[in-house]
Amino acid sequence: MTKTYTIAAIPADGIGIEVIAAGIEVLDALAEKNGTFNFKFDHFDWGSDYYKRHGVMMPADGREQIKDHDAIFFGAVGAPDVPDHITLWGLRLAICQPFDQYANVRPTRILPGITSPLRHVTGPELDWVIVRENSEGEYAGVGGRVHQGHPEEVATDVSMMTRTGVTRIIRYAFKLAQSRPRKLLTVVTKSNAQRHAMVMWDEIAAEVAREFPDVTWDKMLVDAMTMRMVGKPESLDTIVATNLHADILSDLAAALAGSLGIAPTANINPERKFPSMFEPIHGSAFDITGKGIANPVATFWTACQMLEHLGEKPAADRLMRAVERVTADPNLHTPDLGGKATTRQVTDAVIAAIRGDN
Amino acid sequence: MTKTYTIAAIPADGIGIEVIAAGIEVLDALAEKNGTFNFKFDHFDWGSDYYKRHGVMMPADGREQIKDHDAIFFGAVGAPDVPDHITLWGLRLAICQPFDQYANVRPTRILPGITSPLRHVTGPELDWVIVRENSEGEYAGVGGRVHQGHPEEVATDVSMMTRTGVTRIIRYAFKLAQSRPRKLLTVVTKSNAQRHAMVMWDEIAAEVAREFPDVTWDKMLVDAMTMRMVGKPESLDTIVATNLHADILSDLAAALAGSLGIAPTANINPERKFPSMFEPIHGSAFDITGKGIANPVATFWTACQMLEHLGEKPAADRLMRAVERVTADPNLHTPDLGGKATTRQVTDAVIAAIRGDN
Ligand SMILES: CC(C)[C@H](C(=O)O)[C@@H](O)C(=O)O
Ligand SMILES: CC(C)[C@H](C(=O)O)[C@@H](O)C(=O)O
Repeated sequence: MTKTYTIAAIPADGIGIEVIAAGIEVLDALAEKNGTFNFKFDHFDWGSDYYKRHGVMMPADGREQIKDHDAIFFGAVGAPDVPDHITLWGLRLAICQPFDQYANVRPTRILPGITSPLRHVTGPELDWVIVRENSEGEYAGVGGRVHQGHPEEVATDVSMMTRTGVTRIIRYAFKLAQSRPRKLLTVVTKSNAQRHAMVMWDEIAAEVAREFPDVTWDKMLVDAMTMRMVGKPESLDTIVATNLHADILSDLAAALAGSLGIAPTANINPERKFPSMFEPIHGSAFDITGKGIANPVATFWTACQMLEHLGEKPAADRLMRAVERVTADPNLHTPDLGGKATTRQVTDAVIAAIRGDN
Repeated sequence: MTKTYTIAAIPADGIGIEVIAAGIEVLDALAEKNGTFNFKFDHFDWGSDYYKRHGVMMPADGREQIKDHDAIFFGAVGAPDVPDHITLWGLRLAICQPFDQYANVRPTRILPGITSPLRHVTGPELDWVIVRENSEGEYAGVGGRVHQGHPEEVATDVSMMTRTGVTRIIRYAFKLAQSRPRKLLTVVTKSNAQRHAMVMWDEIAAEVAREFPDVTWDKMLVDAMTMRMVGKPESLDTIVATNLHADILSDLAAALAGSLGIAPTANINPERKFPSMFEPIHGSAFDITGKGIANPVATFWTACQMLEHLGEKPAADRLMRAVERVTADPNLHTPDLGGKATTRQVTDAVIAAIRGDN
């Protein structure tokens, strides 16, 4: 019997539409090759165009419409003529936070054929997975402004953390570290300067660590962490950090691994009460939208994350093999990687690699 | 007539003591060569050892003792057996914040003889000055914890910004950008996620920009900024960011420029109501303390910043020439730069270069 996975596809804005289309083609080819499952994609036209027509990024019952799907396959939000905080809070965070997708998982590796901008890095030295807290902290939306526009104005952005929220993300990171060969975790904080919530984070890390005696862990301040990522990439494996710190570190990680066009992310609800959401990290990239040159690799990689989450690990591995076969060929690099290939060519090559895989 | 500058020297902890000693030797040699000014250094033994004896990092009237000095020459704080937040808030921030040293200026360049870890960077592409807000924001110390230690605990770290504080730092950055050949400023925010104080920051940047029609400026989100620093260093010149964002970006900048052992910083009170403070960015580095191998270049460079602030620009230029002559010679690289030279050798070489300078 063939299993059917029902996937909510939300391409949203800019190149999100192009890469999700490519991702769907590749996933269908993979299902066909595999023979034991297939996909039913439901398409949702939410995003900035929807906002311009309806004044909201998604309908009021939007979450209701997708809450029973097996997963969400998401493109990118952001449009030149819609304020960033609307696209972000109106769609992406409006899904992540209510669906309690508190673990944002961002693997970074240097894929075959890709050159790191770091002189001393040939490839295998850089193999990280960043676990980003995805439900609170600096993205809690808390804060305000008083005397707005007047000389005496005071404004705050509040990083609000709960013991529950911090404990569950640190535990998730320890578990993930434990499942990886090196069993190595680096906990990032800034508790020397941020003396309240970040100190709680430090304390909880030390407590949770006791549950995982086989995991080697250390602590880094977020500023020093950037130096270590540049200077000693081989000393890092699994990394856990706050919503904002990990946002910054994961963009840096993507840069050091060769391109944001490769970097995937999974927004996971580990308890599986709600669907998890899979997306490329790159944004909507309106400067290249419609040119057919967006790098679909990040979307293919996040499709692997989705397959793993669905329990289809062998299929995820097959897709990753196909992707790596394609990145290894510089003729199949899109412009962000210094090449001339199109989204179409890369997609066709990955599909061909899937079909030819044994 | 010879001018005398009275400098408060606070070497504090770890290698701070070694590099400030080297800095004083070099400054004395420079004064001698120059002939128009000299230094009177007053030494203060504040820091972690002082804390262990007295329970405070500096005496209650500490600021009173240094408030009339022409400048403060500072080493580093941090000791393995004193909590970080005590060393930081008890000394460094206890000087910066009351003395309203709100502009933290961090130049980054690749000095002659130094190799950037970035493959595509030969040297001149990377020439930045990061202006860090140094008096409020994430380092305001605001926040708290409720139900401490209990499952229902909630904790906050508050970034608190004032219109006054943001306006003055952005104006300072625009002025600095205007004084540099490229007249280029990048304003870093994260207003898509931090929707209150960071939005005020955006608004103020746009307002202040109108006073500087000859400065070209743009805005970057802090996460994307890391990618631009790695990928397009030549597109950046002057950069302004919040206390925390700039803390992170300046460590990254130092890493990309070859070593934290080179990076200097000036804590400036632009109104000159209080003395400004000059320090290397690297910390106390207890792992190499006492070995005589600390890189004194960051301290020499911050001495240049101090000389400029005192109005001794030609002497600052002479010192920088001497430093660059020394870094150009790989035999004079300390271990952080991959060499074998000692603090003593580098210091002697810089003094010799000063004496030989025309
Ligand atoms: C689009 C943007 C708001 C988002 C974030 O800051 O979370 C992005 O940078 C990311 O890393 O996923
Ligand atoms: C020592 C530390 C607290 C300090 C900071 O975060 O400000 C340092 O990282 C810096 O960049 O000067």
